[in-house]
Amino acid sequence: MYLTHLECPKCGRTYDPHRIQNLCQCGSPLLARYDLDKIAASVHKEDLVGRSKSLWRYREFLPVQKEDNIVTLGEGFTPLLPARNLGKTLGLSQLYIKDEGLNPTGTFKARGAAVGVSRAKELGVKTVAMPTAGNAGGAWSAYTARAGLESIVVMPVDAPDLAKKETFLNGARTYLVRGLISDAGKIVARGVQRYGWFDASTLKEPYRIEGKKTMGLEIAEQFGWDVPDVILYPAGGGVGLIGIWKALEELSAIGWISPKKPRMVAVQAEGCSPLVKAFREKRKESEFFQGAQTLAGGIRVPKALGDFLVLEAIYQSHGAAIAVSDSEILEALQLVAKTEGIFICPEGAATVAAVRKMKAAGLLDEGERILLLNTGTGLKYPETVQLDLPVLEVDDDILL
Amino acid sequence: MYLTHLECPKCGRTYDPHRIQNLCQCGSPLLARYDLDKIAASVHKEDLVGRSKSLWRYREFLPVQKEDNIVTLGEGFTPLLPARNLGKTLGLSQLYIKDEGLNPTGTFKARGAAVGVSRAKELGVKTVAMPTAGNAGGAWSAYTARAGLESIVVMPVDAPDLAKKETFLNGARTYLVRGLISDAGKIVARGVQRYGWFDASTLKEPYRIEGKKTMGLEIAEQFGWDVPDVILYPAGGGVGLIGIWKALEELSAIGWISPKKPRMVAVQAEGCSPLVKAFREKRKESEFFQGAQTLAGGIRVPKALGDFLVLEAIYQSHGAAIAVSDSEILEALQLVAKTEGIFICPEGAATVAAVRKMKAAGLLDEGERILLLNTGTGLKYPETVQLDLPVLEVDDDILL
Repeated sequence: MYLTHLECPKCGRTYDPHRIQNLCQCGSPLLARYDLDKIAASVHKEDLVGRSKSLWRYREFLPVQKEDNIVTLGEGFTPLLPARNLGKTLGLSQLYIKDEGLNPTGTFKARGAAVGVSRAKELGVKTVAMPTAGNAGGAWSAYTARAGLESIVVMPVDAPDLAKKETFLNGARTYLVRGLISDAGKIVARGVQRYGWFDASTLKEPYRIEGKKTMGLEIAEQFGWDVPDVILYPAGGGVGLIGIWKALEELSAIGWISPKKPRMVAVQAEGCSPLVKAFREKRKESEFFQGAQTLAGGIRVPKALGDFLVLEAIYQSHGAAIAVSDSEILEALQLVAKTEGIFICPEGAATVAAVRKMKAAGLLDEGERILLLNTGTGLKYPETVQLDLPVLEVDDDILL
Repeated sequence: MYLTHLECPKCGRTYDPHRIQNLCQCGSPLLARYDLDKIAASVHKEDLVGRSKSLWRYREFLPVQKEDNIVTLGEGFTPLLPARNLGKTLGLSQLYIKDEGLNPTGTFKARGAAVGVSRAKELGVKTVAMPTAGNAGGAWSAYTARAGLESIVVMPVDAPDLAKKETFLNGARTYLVRGLISDAGKIVARGVQRYGWFDASTLKEPYRIEGKKTMGLEIAEQFGWDVPDVILYPAGGGVGLIGIWKALEELSAIGWISPKKPRMVAVQAEGCSPLVKAFREKRKESEFFQGAQTLAGGIRVPKALGDFLVLEAIYQSHGAAIAVSDSEILEALQLVAKTEGIFICPEGAATVAAVRKMKAAGLLDEGERILLLNTGTGLKYPETVQLDLPVLEVDDDILL
C-alpha cells in the first residue's frame, strides 16, 4: 500500500509505521503519511465508481496493508442530504447535512474504530484500552468484538446509559469511574503501564484519525470533487475536523480537488469552549476550560490533545470557532426534526445553531454551499426530547 | 416508468395505479405490477454499478414516476455482513447478517416509509394517518416531515419511549391509546372516515411493500445475483418477507437471477406465533393469536392482513415458520454482540435463535449460505440490556 511513515506535526520526527506507535517523544500526536505521488500516479477518481459503499472504498488513503485485516461493520459512505426546508428557514439556499448517524453504533466514532482496530489487529495488538465519554467506547468495543481482540473501556459514571449498555454488551471489560473522562484516562494510563495494553485514547494512537479522515474524502467525492464553501463541525477532541482537513490536503496534493478549500468552522458549546476562546485570542493552542458543562457530551472536552491542529486548520482556511448555548442546541435539534425528519444528536444540532448565528452575523452568503456534520443519531440521546402526548381511550375519536 | 397497474392477489381485480388506492374491494391488499418485459429489455444489471448507494438505485422497480417526488434520507443499500464468528459458534460456515439498523430512523421501516411517502406525495396526498407499534411511526413521521406532509400517528400507550419521542419530535400529531395496535387502527380508521386522511396502515396502501421489496433486490445484488440458500426473517405483519419474495420473483422473471429461490423462513416469538401455527397445520391463512405477548414488539402481530402471502412464499420456497422464546431471543442478542459487535434488535435476534434451532433439528447443512435479517438497531431497545458494572474511584487501579 501507500503508507510510508508516521510524522510528528510539532517537531517533525518520523517513526516506522509498521511497529506499534503511540505519541511522539515530544508528546504530540503522530500523523500517518503516504506516498502521495504514487497514489496520484496509480489511482484515479473513476476507480472508485464500482467500489463498496463503505469507507474502505478509499483503501489507498488508509493505513491497513492487507485486506484480510479489515474489520468492517459497513461503516462510512453516509448520506449527504440537501436540507432545503431547513435552509429556507435559515435563509440559505445550499445547505447540506452529512448524516453520520447511519454508521454502525450510530455515530461517526465507528470510522475511527474501524480503521484503528483493523490496524491494531494488523500490528499484532491483543488488548485495546481506552477512556471514553461514551460513544467511542460503544464503537471500539464493537470492532474489537468483531476482530476477536480484548478491550478495556473506562467511562465516567454519568456517561449515557446507552453507551454503557452497548460497550458492556459487546463484551468489553467496562468500568465506570466516579470522575471525569480525564480521570478515566489516568486509570487507563496506569493499566497500560502495568499490563502492556495498547492505549487507544483519542490521538494517542495514529490511526483513528485516518478513519475520521474518510469523512473528508467522502465530502469531496459526494460533492463531485468540488468541495463546499463552508464546513461546520462540532469540535470536542476535534479529530474529525483534523481528519477532514487532512483529507482535503491529501486530495489537493494529488490534484483530485482544487487548492481552494472550505472555510473550516469548529462549533463548541458555550459551557465548554476552549477552542473558541483560543480563536478569539488568536492563539495557536487552547487552555484547559474550567468547569466544563454542556448537554452535548461529545463536545465536553476541556482541552484537546490536537487543539493546535484544529486551530491551524481554522486559520489556514479563514474559518472560525463559534460557541452556542445548550438552549440554542435543543431548539436547533427540534427544528431539524420538524423540517427535515432527521433526529440529530446535540453535537450535530450545535452546528445548526452555529450556522444560524453565522448567517445573522453576516458571515455567510445566501448562496454559499454549506455543509453541517451531524456526528450521530439522536436515538442515543433520548433525554433531549420531553414527551407530552394526549392519551385516548379505545372508544375516543381524534378531534381536530 | 414501468408501473402498469395494481392487482389483487386474492381475486385478481386490477386498479389504476395513478389514483390513490387502498385495499381491494374484496378486502385484500393490492400489489404493484410492472411491465417486466420492458424492464428486461431496457435495464441491465451493469446499469446499477455507478448508481446511488440507496434503495433508489432500483428506480425501475419502484412506483415513483418523477425523480422530483423522491423523498429520501439515504435509506437502503445496508451492509451485508459475513458473520464468521457467530457462524463458527453455530456450526455454519456461510452465515450472513443484513444489518437494517443502518437505515434512517434505525430500522427497515424507513424503506417502506420512503417509498410510501414519496408515492403518496406524488399522488397528491396531504395528510397521512397510521396506527403503529412504534417504529413505523418513527419512520413515517420522518419522511412526512421531510416531504412537508401532515401526519397523524396513533400508538399504544406502552409503545417504546424512543419511538414515541421520534414521532413527536418529527412533528407528527401523535396520540397514545390505552389499548393495542388494533385499537389504534380503529381510531385511525374512524379519523380517515371523518377527515379524509390517507390511510397508511400496514398493507392498506400498496407502496410500503415496494419499499420493503428493495431488501430482496439488494440481497440479490449483494450476493452477486446468486441468491442465498435460506433467508430467515422476523415476521410480524410479514411485509418484509412478502417484499423480499416479490423482489425475487420479479428478478427471476426478467432473468437476472435463476429460478431457484431461497427457502423463506418466517421467525416468530412463541408468545405470538399465528403464522407458525398455520404453517404446522398446513393452512393458507392464520387465525387471530389470543393473548399475544413478547418482548420483540415488532413481531407482536396477532393476525396479519398479508398472512396468506407470507404462507404462500413459505410453501412455494419449501421454507418454514419457526417460533423461539423470549429467553432464546435475549441470549441470541447477547451472543451476536459478543461475537460480531452488532447490537441487534430483539426481532433480529429471533432469527439467530431460530437458525440455531434449525441447525439442531437438521434443517440446515453446514455449508449452506444463510442470511439473517436484522430489522433494526438494538439502540432502540435499551431495555434488552441489564447493566452490572464495577464502579471505580479516581485513584483506583484496574486489577485483573
